[in-house]
Amino acid sequence: MAGWYEEEFNQKFRVAFRVERTLFSGQSEYQRVEILQSPQWGRVLVLDGMLMTSEVDEFFYHEMLVHPAMISLPQAAQNVLVIGGGDGGTIREVLKHSSVQKVTLVEIDGMVIDACKEHLPALGSSAWKDPRLDLQVGDGVAFVANAKAEHYDLVLLDGTDPVGPGEGLFGREFFANCKRILKAHGAFAMQSESPLLFEKVFFETQSVLSEIFERVQPYLGPVPLYGSGTWSWTWCAKQGDPLAIVDERAAAIEKGARYYNRGIHRGAFSIPNFIAERLKR
Amino acid sequence: MAGWYEEEFNQKFRVAFRVERTLFSGQSEYQRVEILQSPQWGRVLVLDGMLMTSEVDEFFYHEMLVHPAMISLPQAAQNVLVIGGGDGGTIREVLKHSSVQKVTLVEIDGMVIDACKEHLPALGSSAWKDPRLDLQVGDGVAFVANAKAEHYDLVLLDGTDPVGPGEGLFGREFFANCKRILKAHGAFAMQSESPLLFEKVFFETQSVLSEIFERVQPYLGPVPLYGSGTWSWTWCAKQGDPLAIVDERAAAIEKGARYYNRGIHRGAFSIPNFIAERLKR
Repeated sequence: MAGWYEEEFNQKFRVAFRVERTLFSGQSEYQRVEILQSPQWGRVLVLDGMLMTSEVDEFFYHEMLVHPAMISLPQAAQNVLVIGGGDGGTIREVLKHSSVQKVTLVEIDGMVIDACKEHLPALGSSAWKDPRLDLQVGDGVAFVANAKAEHYDLVLLDGTDPVGPGEGLFGREFFANCKRILKAHGAFAMQSESPLLFEKVFFETQSVLSEIFERVQPYLGPVPLYGSGTWSWTWCAKQGDPLAIVDERAAAIEKGARYYNRGIHRGAFSIPNFIAERLKR
Repeated sequence: MAGWYEEEFNQKFRVAFRVERTLFSGQSEYQRVEILQSPQWGRVLVLDGMLMTSEVDEFFYHEMLVHPAMISLPQAAQNVLVIGGGDGGTIREVLKHSSVQKVTLVEIDGMVIDACKEHLPALGSSAWKDPRLDLQVGDGVAFVANAKAEHYDLVLLDGTDPVGPGEGLFGREFFANCKRILKAHGAFAMQSESPLLFEKVFFETQSVLSEIFERVQPYLGPVPLYGSGTWSWTWCAKQGDPLAIVDERAAAIEKGARYYNRGIHRGAFSIPNFIAERLKR
Protein backbone atom coordinates (compact mmCIF):
# COMPACT_ATOMS: atom_id res chain seq x y z
CA MET A 1 0.00 0.00 0.00
CA ALA A 2 1.20 3.52 -0.82
CA GLY A 3 -0.82 6.64 -0.05
CA TRP A 4 -1.91 8.05 3.30
CA TYR A 5 -2.57 6.24 6.57
CA GLU A 6 -5.36 7.96 8.50
CA GLU A 7 -6.38 7.41 12.10
CA GLU A 8 -9.65 8.99 13.12
CA PHE A 9 -9.81 9.21 16.90
CA ASN A 10 -13.34 10.30 17.60
CA GLN A 11 -15.18 11.44 14.46
CA LYS A 12 -13.93 14.92 15.30
CA PHE A 13 -10.18 14.75 14.79
CA ARG A 14 -7.68 12.67 12.87
CA VAL A 15 -4.01 12.49 11.99
CA ALA A 16 -2.58 11.17 8.77
CA PHE A 17 0.84 10.42 7.39
CA ARG A 18 2.14 9.41 4.00
CA VAL A 19 2.90 5.71 3.55
CA GLU A 20 5.48 4.55 1.03
CA ARG A 21 4.91 0.84 1.39
CA THR A 22 3.65 -1.92 3.62
CA LEU A 23 6.52 -3.99 4.94
CA PHE A 24 4.38 -6.52 6.77
CA SER A 25 0.70 -7.29 6.98
CA GLY A 26 -0.79 -10.30 8.72
CA GLN A 27 -3.89 -11.38 10.59
CA SER A 28 -3.00 -13.13 13.83
CA GLU A 29 -5.34 -14.97 16.15
CA TYR A 30 -5.82 -11.65 17.99
CA GLN A 31 -5.50 -8.72 15.63
CA ARG A 32 -4.34 -7.31 12.32
CA VAL A 33 -0.59 -6.64 12.48
CA GLU A 34 0.95 -4.15 10.04
CA ILE A 35 4.30 -2.46 9.68
CA LEU A 36 4.31 0.55 7.34
CA GLN A 37 7.20 2.55 5.89
CA SER A 38 6.61 6.33 6.09
CA PRO A 39 8.73 9.43 5.47
CA GLN A 40 7.50 11.19 8.64
CA TRP A 41 7.85 8.42 11.22
CA GLY A 42 10.05 5.83 9.57
CA ARG A 43 8.63 2.36 10.19
CA VAL A 44 5.33 2.31 12.08
CA LEU A 45 3.64 -0.57 13.91
CA VAL A 46 -0.15 -0.60 13.53
CA LEU A 47 -2.41 -3.06 15.38
CA ASP A 48 -6.06 -3.35 14.33
CA GLY A 49 -5.71 0.02 12.59
CA MET A 50 -4.37 1.76 15.75
CA LEU A 51 -0.96 3.43 15.76
CA MET A 52 1.34 1.76 18.26
CA THR A 53 4.87 3.05 17.82
CA SER A 54 7.35 4.28 15.24
CA GLU A 55 11.09 4.21 14.71
CA VAL A 56 11.29 8.00 14.83
CA ASP A 57 9.42 8.72 18.06
CA GLU A 58 9.40 5.45 20.02
CA PHE A 59 12.01 6.64 22.52
CA PHE A 60 9.65 9.26 24.00
CA TYR A 61 7.22 6.52 24.92
CA HIS A 62 9.55 3.73 25.99
CA GLU A 63 11.95 5.86 28.05
CA MET A 64 9.04 7.40 29.93
CA LEU A 65 7.32 4.10 30.62
CA VAL A 66 10.46 2.56 32.08
CA HIS A 67 12.83 5.07 33.67
CA PRO A 68 10.77 7.17 36.11
CA ALA A 69 9.71 4.02 38.00
CA MET A 70 13.13 2.32 37.74
CA ILE A 71 15.02 5.38 38.93
CA SER A 72 12.82 6.05 41.94
CA LEU A 73 12.62 2.48 43.32
CA PRO A 74 14.16 2.46 46.80
CA GLN A 75 16.19 -0.60 45.83
CA ALA A 76 17.49 -1.01 42.29
CA ALA A 77 15.25 -3.44 40.36
CA GLN A 78 16.50 -6.98 39.81
CA ASN A 79 13.36 -8.76 38.65
CA VAL A 80 11.06 -7.00 36.18
CA LEU A 81 7.85 -8.11 34.44
CA VAL A 82 6.60 -6.50 31.21
CA ILE A 83 3.06 -7.23 29.99
CA GLY A 84 2.57 -6.46 26.30
CA GLY A 85 5.46 -4.64 24.69
CA GLY A 86 5.96 -7.14 21.89
CA ASP A 87 7.81 -4.54 19.84
CA GLY A 88 10.78 -4.85 22.22
CA GLY A 89 11.25 -1.15 23.07
CA THR A 90 10.36 -1.54 26.73
CA ILE A 91 12.65 -4.50 27.43
CA ARG A 92 15.47 -2.63 25.65
CA GLU A 93 15.12 0.25 28.13
CA VAL A 94 14.71 -2.07 31.15
CA LEU A 95 17.89 -3.94 30.27
CA LYS A 96 19.89 -0.69 30.23
CA HIS A 97 19.68 -0.84 34.01
CA SER A 98 22.65 -2.91 35.11
CA SER A 99 20.89 -4.01 38.32
CA VAL A 100 18.37 -6.06 36.33
CA GLN A 101 18.97 -9.81 36.56
CA LYS A 102 15.82 -10.94 34.81
CA VAL A 103 13.09 -9.35 32.69
CA THR A 104 10.07 -11.44 31.77
CA LEU A 105 8.17 -10.29 28.68
CA VAL A 106 4.63 -11.65 28.33
CA GLU A 107 3.19 -10.74 24.94
CA ILE A 108 -0.05 -12.35 23.82
CA ASP A 109 0.66 -12.18 20.10
CA GLY A 110 3.69 -13.99 18.71
CA MET A 111 3.12 -12.37 15.34
CA VAL A 112 3.86 -8.94 16.83
CA ILE A 113 7.19 -10.17 18.19
CA ASP A 114 8.21 -11.88 14.96
CA ALA A 115 7.19 -8.95 12.75
CA CYS A 116 8.97 -6.41 14.97
CA LYS A 117 12.15 -8.50 15.23
CA GLU A 118 12.31 -8.58 11.45
CA HIS A 119 11.01 -5.14 10.42
CA LEU A 120 11.59 -2.97 13.50
CA PRO A 121 14.88 -4.42 14.76
CA ALA A 122 16.00 -1.13 16.40
CA LEU A 123 13.12 -1.38 18.87
CA GLY A 124 14.22 -4.50 20.71
CA SER A 125 17.81 -4.19 19.54
CA SER A 126 20.18 -6.39 21.58
CA ALA A 127 17.46 -7.05 24.18
CA TRP A 128 16.10 -9.96 22.14
CA LYS A 129 19.40 -11.83 22.62
CA ASP A 130 20.10 -10.70 26.19
CA PRO A 131 20.44 -13.77 28.46
CA ARG A 132 18.46 -11.88 31.13
CA LEU A 133 15.32 -11.96 28.92
CA ASP A 134 12.64 -14.57 29.62
CA LEU A 135 10.33 -14.30 26.60
CA GLN A 136 6.85 -15.77 26.98
CA VAL A 137 4.11 -15.71 24.37
CA GLY A 138 0.91 -15.81 26.36
CA ASP A 139 -1.96 -13.98 28.00
CA GLY A 140 -0.77 -11.30 30.43
CA VAL A 141 -4.03 -11.37 32.38
CA ALA A 142 -3.64 -15.10 33.09
CA PHE A 143 0.09 -14.68 33.73
CA VAL A 144 -0.33 -12.17 36.56
CA ALA A 145 -3.23 -14.20 38.01
CA ASN A 146 -0.93 -17.22 38.32
CA ALA A 147 2.29 -15.44 39.30
CA LYS A 148 3.79 -15.70 42.78
CA ALA A 149 2.99 -13.01 45.33
CA GLU A 150 5.63 -10.35 46.09
CA HIS A 151 7.90 -11.60 43.36
CA TYR A 152 8.72 -8.55 41.17
CA ASP A 153 10.47 -5.25 41.81
CA LEU A 154 8.66 -3.64 38.91
CA VAL A 155 5.69 -4.56 36.73
CA LEU A 156 5.22 -2.57 33.51
CA LEU A 157 2.05 -2.62 31.43
CA ASP A 158 2.93 -1.73 27.85
CA GLY A 159 -0.52 -2.35 26.45
CA THR A 160 -2.56 -1.26 23.49
CA ASP A 161 -5.73 0.77 23.93
CA PRO A 162 -8.39 -0.81 26.16
CA VAL A 163 -10.25 -2.50 23.30
CA GLY A 164 -9.71 -5.88 21.62
CA PRO A 165 -6.88 -7.97 23.10
CA GLY A 166 -5.92 -5.09 25.44
CA GLU A 167 -9.31 -4.84 27.12
CA GLY A 168 -8.61 -7.01 30.19
CA LEU A 169 -5.45 -5.02 30.86
CA PHE A 170 -7.41 -2.02 32.12
CA GLY A 171 -9.52 -3.99 34.64
CA ARG A 172 -9.71 -4.04 38.43
CA GLU A 173 -8.72 -7.72 38.72
CA PHE A 174 -5.68 -7.30 36.51
CA PHE A 175 -4.45 -4.30 38.50
CA ALA A 176 -5.08 -6.11 41.81
CA ASN A 177 -2.92 -9.01 40.62
CA CYS A 178 -0.19 -6.60 39.50
CA LYS A 179 -0.14 -5.24 43.03
CA ARG A 180 -0.20 -8.71 44.61
CA ILE A 181 2.89 -9.89 42.71
CA LEU A 182 4.93 -6.77 43.60
CA LYS A 183 7.48 -6.79 46.38
CA ALA A 184 6.70 -4.41 49.25
CA HIS A 185 8.92 -1.69 47.77
CA GLY A 186 7.99 -2.45 44.19
CA ALA A 187 6.22 -0.28 41.65
CA PHE A 188 3.82 -0.66 38.76
CA ALA A 189 3.74 1.66 35.74
CA MET A 190 1.57 1.71 32.66
CA GLN A 191 0.65 3.81 29.65
CA SER A 192 -2.66 5.41 30.54
CA GLU A 193 -3.82 7.12 27.33
CA SER A 194 -4.17 10.82 26.47
CA PRO A 195 -5.74 13.01 29.15
CA LEU A 196 -6.98 15.24 26.30
CA LEU A 197 -8.17 13.07 23.42
CA PHE A 198 -9.18 10.10 25.59
CA GLU A 199 -10.02 11.84 28.81
CA LYS A 200 -12.77 9.40 29.81
CA VAL A 201 -10.40 6.41 29.74
CA PHE A 202 -7.68 8.45 31.44
CA PHE A 203 -9.80 9.55 34.39
CA GLU A 204 -11.56 6.17 34.76
CA THR A 205 -8.19 4.42 34.82
CA GLN A 206 -6.92 6.81 37.52
CA SER A 207 -10.03 6.10 39.53
CA VAL A 208 -9.72 2.30 39.31
CA LEU A 209 -6.00 2.39 40.10
CA SER A 210 -6.72 4.53 43.17
CA GLU A 211 -9.03 1.84 44.52
CA ILE A 212 -6.23 -0.74 44.27
CA PHE A 213 -2.95 1.02 45.01
CA GLU A 214 -2.06 3.21 47.99
CA ARG A 215 -0.10 5.59 45.76
CA VAL A 216 -1.13 6.57 42.25
CA GLN A 217 0.53 9.37 40.28
CA PRO A 218 0.01 10.04 36.60
CA TYR A 219 2.77 11.73 34.63
CA LEU A 220 2.79 13.34 31.22
CA GLY A 221 4.93 13.78 28.18
CA PRO A 222 4.73 14.04 24.43
CA VAL A 223 4.34 11.08 22.09
CA PRO A 224 4.38 12.85 18.72
CA LEU A 225 2.96 9.91 16.76
CA TYR A 226 -0.24 9.97 18.77
CA GLY A 227 -1.19 13.42 17.56
CA SER A 228 -2.69 14.84 20.73
CA GLY A 229 0.15 16.86 22.18
CA THR A 230 0.31 14.95 25.45
CA TRP A 231 0.33 11.35 26.53
CA SER A 232 0.14 9.89 30.04
CA TRP A 233 1.68 7.11 32.01
CA THR A 234 0.78 6.25 35.60
CA TRP A 235 3.08 5.21 38.43
CA CYS A 236 1.52 3.12 41.24
CA ALA A 237 2.90 1.53 44.40
CA LYS A 238 2.07 0.44 47.92
CA GLN A 239 4.57 2.98 49.28
CA GLY A 240 7.32 5.26 48.04
CA ASP A 241 7.56 8.36 45.90
CA PRO A 242 8.21 8.54 42.15
CA LEU A 243 10.14 11.78 42.71
CA ALA A 244 12.63 10.13 45.09
CA ILE A 245 15.17 10.11 42.29
CA VAL A 246 18.30 8.05 42.93
CA ASP A 247 20.89 10.32 41.34
CA GLU A 248 23.53 7.72 40.63
CA ARG A 249 21.02 5.53 38.81
CA ALA A 250 19.58 8.51 36.92
CA ALA A 251 23.01 9.74 35.82
CA ALA A 252 23.87 6.33 34.36
CA ILE A 253 20.63 6.23 32.34
CA GLU A 254 20.74 9.86 31.20
CA LYS A 255 23.97 9.25 29.31
CA GLY A 256 22.30 6.93 26.83
CA ALA A 257 18.81 8.43 26.87
CA ARG A 258 17.40 10.50 24.03
CA TYR A 259 14.43 12.00 25.92
CA TYR A 260 14.80 11.20 29.63
CA ASN A 261 16.72 13.28 32.14
CA ARG A 262 16.09 14.25 35.76
CA GLY A 263 14.49 17.57 34.84
CA ILE A 264 12.12 15.80 32.47
CA HIS A 265 11.38 13.23 35.20
CA ARG A 266 10.42 15.92 37.74
CA GLY A 267 8.54 17.99 35.18
CA ALA A 268 6.46 15.06 33.96
CA PHE A 269 4.87 14.67 37.40
CA SER A 270 3.81 18.35 37.38
CA ILE A 271 0.25 18.00 36.23
CA PRO A 272 -1.51 20.94 34.52
CA ASN A 273 -4.05 22.63 36.79
CA PHE A 274 -7.11 21.64 34.74
CA ILE A 275 -6.19 17.95 35.05
CA ALA A 276 -5.06 18.14 38.69
CA GLU A 277 -8.37 19.72 39.67
CA ARG A 278 -10.37 16.87 38.13
CA LEU A 279 -8.14 14.29 39.83
CA LYS A 280 -8.84 15.81 43.25
CA ARG A 281 -12.60 15.31 42.94
CA MET B 1 -18.18 25.28 4.80
CA ALA B 2 -18.86 21.99 6.56
CA GLY B 3 -16.60 18.96 6.22
CA TRP B 4 -12.99 18.51 7.31
CA TYR B 5 -10.25 21.09 7.70
CA GLU B 6 -6.87 19.60 6.82
CA GLU B 7 -3.44 21.07 7.46
CA GLU B 8 -0.57 19.32 5.73
CA PHE B 9 2.67 20.30 7.42
CA ASN B 10 5.32 18.90 5.17
CA GLN B 11 3.92 16.51 2.54
CA LYS B 12 4.57 13.76 5.07
CA PHE B 13 2.12 14.42 7.89
CA ARG B 14 -1.18 16.19 8.41
CA VAL B 15 -3.88 16.75 10.98
CA ALA B 16 -7.55 17.21 10.27
CA PHE B 17 -10.66 18.09 12.22
CA ARG B 18 -14.32 18.18 11.42
CA VAL B 19 -15.77 21.63 10.68
CA GLU B 20 -19.43 22.35 11.28
CA ARG B 21 -19.49 25.82 9.79
CA THR B 22 -17.47 28.87 8.89
CA LEU B 23 -18.26 31.75 11.22
CA PHE B 24 -16.05 34.28 9.48
CA SER B 25 -14.09 34.40 6.28
CA GLY B 26 -12.39 37.47 4.89
CA GLN B 27 -9.39 38.51 2.85
CA SER B 28 -7.49 41.34 4.51
CA GLU B 29 -4.65 43.35 3.07
CA TYR B 30 -2.29 40.79 4.57
CA GLN B 31 -3.87 37.37 4.66
CA ARG B 32 -6.98 35.19 4.56
CA VAL B 33 -8.72 35.29 7.95
CA GLU B 34 -11.13 32.48 8.89
CA ILE B 35 -12.88 31.40 12.05
CA LEU B 36 -14.28 27.87 11.94
CA GLN B 37 -16.66 26.07 14.30
CA SER B 38 -15.51 22.52 15.10
CA PRO B 39 -16.60 19.83 17.58
CA GLN B 40 -13.00 18.97 18.58
CA TRP B 41 -11.53 22.43 19.18
CA GLY B 42 -14.53 24.73 19.41
CA ARG B 43 -13.90 27.88 17.40
CA VAL B 44 -10.59 27.93 15.54
CA LEU B 45 -8.69 30.88 14.05
CA VAL B 46 -7.01 30.10 10.73
CA LEU B 47 -4.72 32.57 8.92
CA ASP B 48 -3.70 31.84 5.33
CA GLY B 49 -4.72 28.22 5.91
CA MET B 50 -2.52 27.85 9.00
CA LEU B 51 -4.00 26.92 12.37
CA MET B 52 -3.45 29.68 14.90
CA THR B 53 -5.45 28.97 18.04
CA SER B 54 -8.68 27.46 19.29
CA GLU B 55 -11.12 28.04 22.12
CA VAL B 56 -10.43 24.58 23.55
CA ASP B 57 -6.65 24.60 23.71
CA GLU B 58 -5.59 28.26 23.54
CA PHE B 59 -4.70 28.42 27.25
CA PHE B 60 -1.76 26.01 26.81
CA TYR B 61 -0.20 28.43 24.35
CA HIS B 62 -1.05 31.78 25.90
CA GLU B 63 -0.24 30.89 29.50
CA MET B 64 3.14 29.52 28.46
CA LEU B 65 4.04 32.50 26.28
CA VAL B 66 3.30 34.98 29.08
CA HIS B 67 3.81 33.57 32.57
CA PRO B 68 7.31 32.01 32.65
CA ALA B 69 8.86 35.36 31.66
CA MET B 70 6.54 37.46 33.82
CA ILE B 71 7.07 35.35 36.90
CA SER B 72 10.86 35.26 36.68
CA LEU B 73 11.46 38.99 36.03
CA PRO B 74 13.53 40.40 38.90
CA GLN B 75 11.08 43.31 39.15
CA ALA B 76 7.39 42.80 38.45
CA ALA B 77 6.54 44.04 34.96
CA GLN B 78 4.79 47.39 34.61
CA ASN B 79 5.18 48.14 30.90
CA VAL B 80 4.67 45.28 28.43
CA LEU B 81 4.73 45.17 24.62
CA VAL B 82 3.01 42.43 22.60
CA ILE B 83 3.75 42.07 18.88
CA GLY B 84 1.10 40.09 17.00
CA GLY B 85 -1.44 38.42 19.24
CA GLY B 86 -4.49 39.96 17.57
CA ASP B 87 -6.71 37.20 18.97
CA GLY B 88 -6.38 38.78 22.43
CA GLY B 89 -5.24 35.70 24.39
CA THR B 90 -1.81 37.07 25.22
CA ILE B 91 -2.98 40.46 26.50
CA ARG B 92 -5.60 38.66 28.60
CA GLU B 93 -2.85 36.71 30.38
CA VAL B 94 -0.55 39.75 30.68
CA LEU B 95 -3.31 41.78 32.32
CA LYS B 96 -3.82 39.11 34.99
CA HIS B 97 -0.59 40.42 36.51
CA SER B 98 -1.64 43.24 38.82
CA SER B 99 1.75 44.95 38.50
CA VAL B 100 1.08 45.77 34.85
CA GLN B 101 0.28 49.43 34.25
CA LYS B 102 0.30 49.35 30.48
CA VAL B 103 0.27 46.71 27.75
CA THR B 104 0.74 47.83 24.15
CA LEU B 105 -0.59 45.44 21.51
CA VAL B 106 0.74 45.95 17.99
CA GLU B 107 -1.14 43.77 15.52
CA ILE B 108 -0.63 44.31 11.80
CA ASP B 109 -4.06 43.09 10.74
CA GLY B 110 -7.14 44.89 12.04
CA MET B 111 -9.36 42.22 10.52
CA VAL B 112 -7.90 39.63 12.92
CA ILE B 113 -8.74 41.82 15.90
CA ASP B 114 -12.27 42.55 14.72
CA ALA B 115 -13.04 38.95 13.77
CA CYS B 116 -11.69 37.62 17.10
CA LYS B 117 -13.54 40.23 19.18
CA GLU B 118 -16.77 39.12 17.54
CA HIS B 119 -16.31 35.36 17.09
CA LEU B 120 -13.68 34.42 19.68
CA PRO B 121 -14.63 36.77 22.53
CA ALA B 122 -13.28 34.43 25.25
CA LEU B 123 -9.76 34.92 23.92
CA GLY B 124 -9.38 38.61 24.69
CA SER B 125 -12.20 38.60 27.23
CA SER B 126 -12.16 41.74 29.41
CA ALA B 127 -8.68 42.67 28.16
CA TRP B 128 -10.16 44.50 25.17
CA LYS B 129 -11.85 46.96 27.54
CA ASP B 130 -9.07 47.18 30.10
CA PRO B 131 -7.91 50.81 30.47
CA ARG B 132 -4.32 49.55 30.66
CA LEU B 133 -4.50 48.37 27.03
CA ASP B 134 -2.96 50.52 24.29
CA LEU B 135 -4.18 48.90 21.07
CA GLN B 136 -2.32 49.76 17.89
CA VAL B 137 -2.99 48.39 14.44
CA GLY B 138 0.35 48.51 12.68
CA ASP B 139 3.55 46.80 11.66
CA GLY B 140 5.42 45.30 14.60
CA VAL B 141 8.74 45.40 12.78
CA ALA B 142 8.46 49.17 12.25
CA PHE B 143 7.09 49.66 15.77
CA VAL B 144 10.10 48.14 17.52
CA ALA B 145 12.48 49.96 15.14
CA ASN B 146 10.98 53.29 16.22
CA ALA B 147 10.39 52.54 19.90
CA LYS B 148 12.44 54.15 22.67
CA ALA B 149 15.46 52.31 24.05
CA GLU B 150 15.19 50.56 27.44
CA HIS B 151 11.48 51.26 27.65
CA TYR B 152 9.79 47.88 28.29
CA ASP B 153 9.97 45.32 31.09
CA LEU B 154 8.81 42.58 28.76
CA VAL B 155 8.41 42.20 25.01
CA LEU B 156 6.36 39.24 23.77
CA LEU B 157 6.30 38.05 20.18
CA ASP B 158 3.03 36.25 19.54
CA GLY B 159 3.59 35.74 15.84
CA THR B 160 2.42 33.41 13.15
CA ASP B 161 4.82 31.09 11.36
CA PRO B 162 7.79 32.80 9.69
CA VAL B 163 6.13 33.12 6.29
CA GLY B 164 3.83 35.83 4.88
CA PRO B 165 3.19 38.75 7.25
CA GLY B 166 5.13 36.98 10.03
CA GLU B 167 8.37 36.67 8.09
CA GLY B 168 10.15 39.78 9.39
CA LEU B 169 9.38 38.74 12.96
CA PHE B 170 12.00 35.98 12.86
CA GLY B 171 14.86 38.22 11.66
CA ARG B 172 18.09 39.46 13.21
CA GLU B 173 17.14 43.13 12.99
CA PHE B 174 13.77 42.63 14.62
CA PHE B 175 15.30 40.69 17.51
CA ALA B 176 18.05 43.30 17.94
CA ASN B 177 15.41 46.01 18.26
CA CYS B 178 13.46 43.92 20.76
CA LYS B 179 16.60 43.77 22.87
CA ARG B 180 17.33 47.48 22.45
CA ILE B 181 13.91 48.54 23.75
CA LEU B 182 14.13 46.29 26.84
CA LYS B 183 15.08 47.66 30.23
CA ALA B 184 18.28 46.21 31.67
CA HIS B 185 16.36 43.63 33.70
CA GLY B 186 13.74 43.02 31.03
CA ALA B 187 12.97 39.88 29.09
CA PHE B 188 11.79 38.89 25.65
CA ALA B 189 9.74 35.75 24.95
CA MET B 190 8.35 34.32 21.73
CA GLN B 191 6.72 31.28 20.24
CA SER B 192 9.49 29.44 18.42
CA GLU B 193 7.77 26.62 16.51
CA SER B 194 7.89 22.86 17.02
CA PRO B 195 11.34 21.39 17.66
CA LEU B 196 10.05 18.19 16.04
CA LEU B 197 7.91 19.07 13.02
CA PHE B 198 9.71 22.34 12.25
CA GLU B 199 13.13 21.57 13.58
CA LYS B 200 14.98 23.64 10.98
CA VAL B 201 13.13 26.86 11.96
CA PHE B 202 13.45 26.00 15.65
CA PHE B 203 17.22 25.52 15.60
CA GLU B 204 17.86 28.46 13.26
CA THR B 205 15.81 30.73 15.51
CA GLN B 206 17.79 29.58 18.56
CA SER B 207 20.98 30.31 16.68
CA VAL B 208 19.96 33.86 15.62
CA LEU B 209 18.65 34.69 19.11
CA SER B 210 21.94 33.53 20.61
CA GLU B 211 23.82 36.05 18.47
CA ILE B 212 21.66 38.88 19.84
CA PHE B 213 20.85 38.08 23.46
CA GLU B 214 23.24 37.16 26.27
CA ARG B 215 20.79 34.59 27.62
CA VAL B 216 18.59 32.36 25.46
CA GLN B 217 16.59 29.44 26.81
CA PRO B 218 13.93 27.54 24.89
CA TYR B 219 11.15 25.85 26.82
CA LEU B 220 8.59 23.27 25.78
CA GLY B 221 5.01 22.29 26.28
CA PRO B 222 2.05 20.80 24.47
CA VAL B 223 -0.20 22.76 22.12
CA PRO B 224 -2.70 20.05 21.16
CA LEU B 225 -4.10 21.90 18.14
CA TYR B 226 -0.71 21.92 16.44
CA GLY B 227 -0.59 18.15 16.19
CA SER B 228 3.08 17.57 16.86
CA GLY B 229 3.18 16.61 20.50
CA THR B 230 5.42 19.49 21.57
CA TRP B 231 5.66 23.20 20.94
CA SER B 232 8.40 25.62 21.94
CA TRP B 233 8.74 29.13 23.24
CA THR B 234 12.02 30.90 23.87
CA TRP B 235 12.97 33.19 26.74
CA CYS B 236 15.74 35.74 26.09
CA ALA B 237 17.35 38.46 28.18
CA LYS B 238 20.49 40.45 28.78
CA GLN B 239 20.76 38.97 32.27
CA GLY B 240 18.69 36.96 34.71
CA ASP B 241 17.34 33.43 34.91
CA PRO B 242 13.91 32.20 33.77
CA LEU B 243 13.92 29.70 36.65
CA ALA B 244 14.29 32.43 39.28
CA ILE B 245 10.60 32.02 40.09
CA VAL B 246 9.11 34.72 42.33
CA ASP B 247 6.82 32.56 44.45
CA GLU B 248 4.37 35.25 45.48
CA ARG B 249 3.80 36.25 41.86
CA ALA B 250 3.53 32.62 40.76
CA ALA B 251 1.02 31.75 43.47
CA ALA B 252 -1.26 34.61 42.42
CA ILE B 253 -1.23 33.47 38.77
CA GLU B 254 -1.57 29.75 39.49
CA LYS B 255 -4.96 30.31 41.10
CA GLY B 256 -6.56 31.37 37.83
CA ALA B 257 -4.39 29.34 35.46
CA ARG B 258 -5.61 26.26 33.64
CA TYR B 259 -2.21 24.94 32.53
CA TYR B 260 0.51 26.92 34.28
CA ASN B 261 1.95 26.14 37.69
CA ARG B 262 5.45 26.27 39.17
CA GLY B 263 6.13 22.60 38.48
CA ILE B 264 5.11 23.06 34.85
CA HIS B 265 7.31 26.19 34.68
CA ARG B 266 10.40 24.32 35.92
CA GLY B 267 9.64 21.24 33.85
CA ALA B 268 9.21 23.21 30.62
CA PHE B 269 12.83 24.38 30.77
CA SER B 270 14.05 20.76 31.06
CA ILE B 271 14.93 20.07 27.47
CA PRO B 272 14.98 16.48 26.15
CA ASN B 273 18.52 15.17 25.63
CA PHE B 274 18.26 14.88 21.86
CA ILE B 275 17.37 18.59 21.58
CA ALA B 276 19.82 19.77 24.25
CA GLU B 277 22.67 18.01 22.47
CA ARG B 278 21.95 19.81 19.20
CA LEU B 279 21.70 23.17 20.99
CA LYS B 280 25.19 22.70 22.47
CA ARG B 281 26.84 22.36 19.06
